[in-house]
Amino acid sequence: MNKHGIILFGHGARDPRWAEPFERLAAKLRALRGEPVSLAFLELMTPDLPAAVARQAADGCDAITVVPVFFGQGGHVRRDLPEIIEKCRSAHPDVTISCATAVGEDDAVLDAVAEYCLRQAGQ
Amino acid sequence: MNKHGIILFGHGARDPRWAEPFERLAAKLRALRGEPVSLAFLELMTPDLPAAVARQAADGCDAITVVPVFFGQGGHVRRDLPEIIEKCRSAHPDVTISCATAVGEDDAVLDAVAEYCLRQAGQ
Repeated sequence: MNKHGIILFGHGARDPRWAEPFERLAAKLRALRGEPVSLAFLELMTPDLPAAVARQAADGCDAITVVPVFFGQGGHVRRDLPEIIEKCRSAHPDVTISCATAVGEDDAVLDAVAEYCLRQAGQ
Repeated sequence: MNKHGIILFGHGARDPRWAEPFERLAAKLRALRGEPVSLAFLELMTPDLPAAVARQAADGCDAITVVPVFFGQGGHVRRDLPEIIEKCRSAHPDVTISCATAVGEDDAVLDAVAEYCLRQAGQ
């Protein structure tokens, strides 16, 4: 087996409706690729990242890319996430686990957000 | 005067680097439009939304669009933000203050995030 999973990593929130854009994003990605795409959360929602990694590893993924779906890179992305990733690597030494920078750092994402802001202001 | 301001409303964080994408987003918008664009934060960073609204009102804005730069709409966007907006409207009855849905609800934004995820997974 040679599967490359993507895990979308979000903060989590008490309100279940908070996760809707993450679910839509995962559905978009599943429509674009034939390999596993799943969600994981830092807190307040499940699964957490170790559980999501374990599931993709059990599903036969030998590579996993974790994408932090955050705008800014603060303590959660710079400090908490690398620690969790290290634990996942120790638990799954045969899986290559890489971690992207937060999606809000991407220029094309910011361009799309800027266009949305202009539309909202009627411009 | 007839100015329409945009305020990018984010959560805020302890790490000042967290705000970098918000500053880049504001710079992109300033390059695209001649009217005021500013940042405001729910907590941990300044200015807060009432201060940002007061500044744009003092600058001559008679319309302000607040755009929540959040992926999900949880308690912060659904409960905290409307209360703050109502206070701003009471403080500035001559300014038309509107509030957009969170940027993560926009399909074009999610498409850009999906494309970023694919690039990060080498696809």
